[in-house]
Amino acid sequence: VVNVVITGASGFLGSRLARHLLAAGTICVAGAGPTAIRRLTLTDRMPVPADLAADERVSGVVGELAALAGDRADPLRLADADVIFHLAAAVSGECEADFDLGLRANLRATESLLQSCRAAGSNPLVVFASSVAAFGGAPDRPLPAVVTDDTPPNPQTSYGTQKVICEHLLADFSRKGFLRGRSIRLMTVSVRPGTPNGAASGFLSGIIREPLAGQRATCPVEPGTEVALASPATAIDGLLRAASASDQDWGGRGPVNLPALTVSVGEMARALERVAGPAVAALIDWVFDPAIAAMFATWPGRVRSDRATALGLVADPDFESIIRLHIAESASGGSASTFT
Amino acid sequence: VVNVVITGASGFLGSRLARHLLAAGTICVAGAGPTAIRRLTLTDRMPVPADLAADERVSGVVGELAALAGDRADPLRLADADVIFHLAAAVSGECEADFDLGLRANLRATESLLQSCRAAGSNPLVVFASSVAAFGGAPDRPLPAVVTDDTPPNPQTSYGTQKVICEHLLADFSRKGFLRGRSIRLMTVSVRPGTPNGAASGFLSGIIREPLAGQRATCPVEPGTEVALASPATAIDGLLRAASASDQDWGGRGPVNLPALTVSVGEMARALERVAGPAVAALIDWVFDPAIAAMFATWPGRVRSDRATALGLVADPDFESIIRLHIAESASGGSASTFT
Repeated sequence: VVNVVITGASGFLGSRLARHLLAAGTICVAGAGPTAIRRLTLTDRMPVPADLAADERVSGVVGELAALAGDRADPLRLADADVIFHLAAAVSGECEADFDLGLRANLRATESLLQSCRAAGSNPLVVFASSVAAFGGAPDRPLPAVVTDDTPPNPQTSYGTQKVICEHLLADFSRKGFLRGRSIRLMTVSVRPGTPNGAASGFLSGIIREPLAGQRATCPVEPGTEVALASPATAIDGLLRAASASDQDWGGRGPVNLPALTVSVGEMARALERVAGPAVAALIDWVFDPAIAAMFATWPGRVRSDRATALGLVADPDFESIIRLHIAESASGGSASTFT
Repeated sequence: VVNVVITGASGFLGSRLARHLLAAGTICVAGAGPTAIRRLTLTDRMPVPADLAADERVSGVVGELAALAGDRADPLRLADADVIFHLAAAVSGECEADFDLGLRANLRATESLLQSCRAAGSNPLVVFASSVAAFGGAPDRPLPAVVTDDTPPNPQTSYGTQKVICEHLLADFSRKGFLRGRSIRLMTVSVRPGTPNGAASGFLSGIIREPLAGQRATCPVEPGTEVALASPATAIDGLLRAASASDQDWGGRGPVNLPALTVSVGEMARALERVAGPAVAALIDWVFDPAIAAMFATWPGRVRSDRATALGLVADPDFESIIRLHIAESASGGSASTFT
């Protein structure tokens, strides 16, 4: 039996991962077969959703991660944690608006968590949710046409910078034998259910989710802008595979790009029209925002994911199927409480 | 007139840089011509050498950088600093032996300095002494035959990890307009005068310096091991050029590899024999140390420095000239107090 910790567990991906693990009842860790989950510690600044809190295997811990992880009383019970999914983060738009928030919530909190894992001495497997925002193009150093696992990170946002720094910290803590770190770079998740968050990429969900709910949504970038996406289900697959792979299959301490579907924003709108009709697609307002467009221009649209592919992970086949998945999930009890 | 700050100013490179600046009386900054140096603030954990402290332009500030930079009283007078050379660091061997020391002295101190520059609001030019230890080879990700400015950092020491992290912090603080950061990756400096320090690469000076002084010295790696070196004078040239280049010539926020002379350790010994005779070279004891050899095996021996070359910087021509330079400098008042 194993003990699992999820940070950022009240967020959309964290709570989805928690629901998946509780429904499965087991988890595969580092090459071993399915093992029963004894305890699932869910931590976040916000209380965990009621359905998760109601499960007897769940311990909810509410607070700032930096403080919780730094607490000698070990409220996260890291001392007998086997697997930690570290998802807690301030998002890209927030970090651009509030530089100190990013340093505190992304950098300091991660350092605190890693130091606490080290102090606990249980050598846990730590899956760190990094981001495609690790990559970036600048005038002096343009992005290659396709980024790979070997493309040098060159983040052009504070969020991306903090993710890259944490990848390096995780690798060094791993090298020292304090924990077994695995960094994965998540693609932009679309369609993200619930309400908009502070991510600069939030509109990539909004322009599908809002029109499907009969509401207008704004697209701030040109239709030709290419983006690297993954559905929520594909993102969860990546998190679970990062935990389940054997050390040998994982293949080293460097970060792994998750698989991406490359699609232009215009194609996303056309897919919405094919799935839901022109009246729904017409609810997208194309209002160019130079600040958001500039941030997007630094992010890669085409990502090659050789290590993830070797691990058996695959990208979503097309954007229509992502929309259909979102509609199906929304229909089957897709209330805000299920997805937020 | 400009105000200059040097951190780590009691170290070998810092005090050498300070002597150079005081002797010149001027400094070139960001494309401008020579400007008089009004004040030179030298900070270090150790008191600055007496000859520097005696200069009326010098303000010596003794203490831990993290505390000094974090002090609201601004003992480093960052509020009107024009150029900061940030050299203070715990070295590689120390950081491997004491993980927390590295985080504190390299990571926390740099963060503190950058935050204080931001708070001071004077937008100083900050030259950060990074290291070739940013690069590394691992079994899953071997080093290329030659590393370039575009090779992805893959540090295999805590020291190198901390240097890479600080490069990213500097770039992001620069992007936000809080300061004008320029990271340069120093090569291993040889021949470093004075007494051995805790750097794992220290023997690359010791095997020359000690025999020339009639003492035995140990070489812990195989003679065939290739290393990327620069003389002290070449390292200082790089620091000064990082300050003097115009923004356009500097060419972006990414770190710049300084020029390297590639030489094998066996060739270094043969150069010593040619310069000082076989009796001197025989003072080298070849005692293989697997731990040090393993660390060296992860570091690059061949470095291409395209951006530095475009800035007019050049590598030392050969190792014999480096030895002769060391002998000449040692003879002309090369007491420990001059060089330590």
